[in-house]
Amino acid sequence: MTATDRGRSAERIEQDIESLAGPEYTVSAEAIRRYAYTGAYRNTLDYFTGALEELGFEVSTDPVGTLVARNRPEGEQAFGIGSHCDSNRNGGKYDGTMGVVTALEICRLNAELGLDLPLQLMSFLEEEGSGFGQMLLGSRIMLQRVTDEDLREHFRALDDGRSFWEHAAEAGYAPERWRDSIHVLDDLTGWIEMHIEQARVLQDTGNRIGIVHAIAGYVHADVTVHGRGDHAGATPMDFRLDPTLVLAETALELERLAKEAGHGTVGTIGEIDVDPSLINAIASAVRFSLDVRGPVDELYRGVADTIGAYAVAAAERRGMTAEVRPRQTLAVTPLDATIVAALEDAAIGTGEPYLRMHSGAAHDTMCVAERVPSAMVFVPCVDGISHHPAEDAEPSDAALAAEIILNAIRALA
Amino acid sequence: MTATDRGRSAERIEQDIESLAGPEYTVSAEAIRRYAYTGAYRNTLDYFTGALEELGFEVSTDPVGTLVARNRPEGEQAFGIGSHCDSNRNGGKYDGTMGVVTALEICRLNAELGLDLPLQLMSFLEEEGSGFGQMLLGSRIMLQRVTDEDLREHFRALDDGRSFWEHAAEAGYAPERWRDSIHVLDDLTGWIEMHIEQARVLQDTGNRIGIVHAIAGYVHADVTVHGRGDHAGATPMDFRLDPTLVLAETALELERLAKEAGHGTVGTIGEIDVDPSLINAIASAVRFSLDVRGPVDELYRGVADTIGAYAVAAAERRGMTAEVRPRQTLAVTPLDATIVAALEDAAIGTGEPYLRMHSGAAHDTMCVAERVPSAMVFVPCVDGISHHPAEDAEPSDAALAAEIILNAIRALA
Repeated sequence: MTATDRGRSAERIEQDIESLAGPEYTVSAEAIRRYAYTGAYRNTLDYFTGALEELGFEVSTDPVGTLVARNRPEGEQAFGIGSHCDSNRNGGKYDGTMGVVTALEICRLNAELGLDLPLQLMSFLEEEGSGFGQMLLGSRIMLQRVTDEDLREHFRALDDGRSFWEHAAEAGYAPERWRDSIHVLDDLTGWIEMHIEQARVLQDTGNRIGIVHAIAGYVHADVTVHGRGDHAGATPMDFRLDPTLVLAETALELERLAKEAGHGTVGTIGEIDVDPSLINAIASAVRFSLDVRGPVDELYRGVADTIGAYAVAAAERRGMTAEVRPRQTLAVTPLDATIVAALEDAAIGTGEPYLRMHSGAAHDTMCVAERVPSAMVFVPCVDGISHHPAEDAEPSDAALAAEIILNAIRALA
Repeated sequence: MTATDRGRSAERIEQDIESLAGPEYTVSAEAIRRYAYTGAYRNTLDYFTGALEELGFEVSTDPVGTLVARNRPEGEQAFGIGSHCDSNRNGGKYDGTMGVVTALEICRLNAELGLDLPLQLMSFLEEEGSGFGQMLLGSRIMLQRVTDEDLREHFRALDDGRSFWEHAAEAGYAPERWRDSIHVLDDLTGWIEMHIEQARVLQDTGNRIGIVHAIAGYVHADVTVHGRGDHAGATPMDFRLDPTLVLAETALELERLAKEAGHGTVGTIGEIDVDPSLINAIASAVRFSLDVRGPVDELYRGVADTIGAYAVAAAERRGMTAEVRPRQTLAVTPLDATIVAALEDAAIGTGEPYLRMHSGAAHDTMCVAERVPSAMVFVPCVDGISHHPAEDAEPSDAALAAEIILNAIRALA
């Protein structure tokens, strides 16, 4: 194990993060707001490019703008590190950016300590979807999870409605070569992404590091319950078909089922629309969303199936009807056991408290892991807040993550 | 008991209702839409004025435009009948109008049958609040339940923002004399309003007539539950403060409490607002409305108090907070036992199925009853639909109501 000067690393990480929170790196004064092909985004790529070139890295991009920096020539193997440096529209300083900054710090340490590990830093385009409303866009393009038609027609800028294709070309990229993006992964022997946790598990359990062994899969669906809109004052309790009561029963049953399934299974009703939503009217219909996730496919899918059937049966029991419409499902992304083990060994070596955990949120690593053995490292963020200017995290935790990742890569080399 | 030719009454009632659904009586082609001081409303008053003058009634208005027609000179006692002839903005042909039309039919029968009962027909201004957003406005003005300031400043036209006062004066009325409106009630020995039920109790129980012995009181309030907005994927079940679960528990408990209280007590959650309402976010807060009503003050008020305390306790049990904010409360309006009994006797005399019931909805009679012994008669409306162009009711039921009311007034004379 190599010990690093974490105090100095934390200072440099903090300096990078604060620099990238300056006015030239955001298009909003109230929040960090940067997304593909804006000047603020270009300046951010230039910041990393300058710092990496100083370290002797060759810096380029894939055909649409994901940053790729290597300290070995093309064709030679390297270990991948990085994250994304775009932000949510109402974003903070840490989500994504802290991961790229920490990867940069690993490159610095690699040089300063004379380790000469072969490294490839990547900063993915449009992870947050703030430019074109498409999450994980850069990594999905890289893994060929989009179509020509998507890029030319369907994916359009939230700002001006023009296509992704048009914007990418105007920014000097070569969207017609997007399929070549996948070759960026050709030389990688592994990939580790560091990210803020975006939840409060590490904070509330007193851990400084999360070592992520899987990224949760999920089922997203909508339930609509059709009741009967009657006068709230004039309709006796026994004459009602009130769909809010089916919502109520389903919400409590979802909580029960998720807890019963355990093993990280979670279930949430985040959206509720009541029609017509008047104080003196029994609702004629209620629509609510289902978000059921977990790191074990059978468990969260079982809960999703069961709660859908429960809602339909609960409606029928009360003389109503309900239907469940799936929105999207995505399987669990298991991460690489060898890399996870190397990260755990390195974490144990530091003596600092860490937690083996899964990620409930989606990350570019879900795409990368399809091709390259991958893992993730989380650091705590205050009260789990992300996607908000109040987002906060500790540079000293990022410095600890840098040391752990560096040692894991050494052990894997 | 006097038997009437109900078939002929039904024909005349239907003819009146269809006439008043014509283009000169509504400002919308898609619905009946008429409210104070529009041409459509003026035409409707003129229609009734013409028909009543033909019957020898002297027709006038109170100082703001409630129609008052009498077959006896001022100072002589008379029995009051009527309803309102304005409509909801997206209204149908029957709500209010059928009550005035039926009162007109009673005046016709009174003449034809040579009964010469002393009658005072009234059609209240702005029951629906479509002009100025104020329900029961005409009867509240009459009962002095408004202030000068309300009429001059606070109550403003939904269409142009100008004050009620300005509109009333422009239409030729004398708003400065609004306090004199109450004298319209000086000569009344009783008041009976006929109205469509606006619920499905009569239809579903197979009754053609409802005899209303009380108008429900109510408590309107809002409950806000403060949870913690966390990531739906990344936050384990045991780390959550999800306010939608307090909503769920409260909705089911409200149903249980209202049924347990019985005696017509009802409770409804009609409005639900989730913040931020995203499929992948645990809500940070939920606001929902409470509508608790019934014909027995102690019972529905007890349920309202209990459910508010329940919501606060349910939030606390889950580590959250909740607060209850009252919007409005209104006590039960008991109706006059003697008039109700006379109506029941008259109903029994017809041999037709009737139901003694309370009104869950508000009506102008709530105001009138403060000064004049009052009751109401309901007729069924199809599937309980009201405030909608699909509103439908049977002229033959209204004809039955006319005969019952006529006989009750005779018995009371």
